[in-house]
Amino acid sequence: PGKKVLIVYAHQEPKSFNGSLLKIAVEELTKQGCSVTVSDLYAMQFEPRATRNDIVGHLHNSEEFNYGVETWEAYKRGGLSKDLVEEQRKVQEADLLIFQFPLFWFNMPAILKGWMDRVLVQGFAYDLSKSYDGGLLQDKLSLFSFTTGGTKEMYSKEGIGGDIRYILWPMQHGIMHFCGVKVLEPHICYAPAHASEEKRKEMLAAWTQRLKTLWKEEPIDCSPEWYFK
Amino acid sequence: PGKKVLIVYAHQEPKSFNGSLLKIAVEELTKQGCSVTVSDLYAMQFEPRATRNDIVGHLHNSEEFNYGVETWEAYKRGGLSKDLVEEQRKVQEADLLIFQFPLFWFNMPAILKGWMDRVLVQGFAYDLSKSYDGGLLQDKLSLFSFTTGGTKEMYSKEGIGGDIRYILWPMQHGIMHFCGVKVLEPHICYAPAHASEEKRKEMLAAWTQRLKTLWKEEPIDCSPEWYFK
Repeated sequence: PGKKVLIVYAHQEPKSFNGSLLKIAVEELTKQGCSVTVSDLYAMQFEPRATRNDIVGHLHNSEEFNYGVETWEAYKRGGLSKDLVEEQRKVQEADLLIFQFPLFWFNMPAILKGWMDRVLVQGFAYDLSKSYDGGLLQDKLSLFSFTTGGTKEMYSKEGIGGDIRYILWPMQHGIMHFCGVKVLEPHICYAPAHASEEKRKEMLAAWTQRLKTLWKEEPIDCSPEWYFK
Repeated sequence: PGKKVLIVYAHQEPKSFNGSLLKIAVEELTKQGCSVTVSDLYAMQFEPRATRNDIVGHLHNSEEFNYGVETWEAYKRGGLSKDLVEEQRKVQEADLLIFQFPLFWFNMPAILKGWMDRVLVQGFAYDLSKSYDGGLLQDKLSLFSFTTGGTKEMYSKEGIGGDIRYILWPMQHGIMHFCGVKVLEPHICYAPAHASEEKRKEMLAAWTQRLKTLWKEEPIDCSPEWYFK
């Protein structure tokens, strides 16, 4: 109660299964007294490309454009583009970040990757020697909630897709842990497109159920062993 | 000689280290008699967002938009947007795909992920039960060539970033292998931004050197053991 949640949502269709998962999260968390903000990336036509347009005014080095250096410098002087400042404000205020998306090619969709690339800039999310447990977004939690095309069996250690945790490493460790954000167990709905209506309802109910006790959960142990053992 | 190469390039700045790596590849491969095509994604302002705009004309199901289904149907009736048709043509003609980019958040930049999301659609790159060794883009090779911010030590099994191969799994196995494309050893330039001018020259020379004997290389063994053992 009183907690702030930012849901970064990447699906084009409100009637989709991802849309239902989003709706459930907004309703259930609001009911708990949380304040919920949604960044609906497709609806916002969020820009995924990291370009010079992200810097307002002069460049630090206009001879040779370096996105990392330029956004770092721009962040320090308050010169990032408005859409980035707005997303950073939402992140700053949030106690919990939920990422809701369909897995595309063993990863998040490009529009969501673009949110990571552009919003989590140096100075804001991490800094020189301030990364991983020392990252700048400490005291925040994150949760990756996604749907897959493949079945649970396919994403097992012996399956053709390998352990689903292999896919979580770049997202959870490489991004969230790098910024100091703690990571809750991912929430994975396997192959809803090929499930019966009854099974789909069960999956939606399980998400509601999980959200009811979410604030009592402990973050995962963010070590290589969690992912690859 | 006579081979066709498509280089998909994702850096904003021609004067960057990635720009130099691109230039080397174009020059060296052209010198060998290869026909080289470059998709310079930032220069093309390539669209990374997977939306309804990728389908020309009517939708298969306009009540509930499903990107995977719609692009599959559109591919079959020749109804994909012009930019996708053009990229697919380049892929179709290529013997070798080289992806040249700076690693962003343990992954490719969003603009390149968007190329994967939008170009490699069902029907073109894979199909029902035509994936992995049965994928539709067989007899092609791929090579991921990228720069990192972190050092080689950081991306080792005991390093904070973990084995660099963990990061390669979603790209090489989840995308290329899934489509039936064979994968050559990645080409990784660690932390060029923090290297001496001499070291940078050495790294560029090593890339030229590798390209000289590229066509004699054997693809890697695309098994989980290669990545996680």
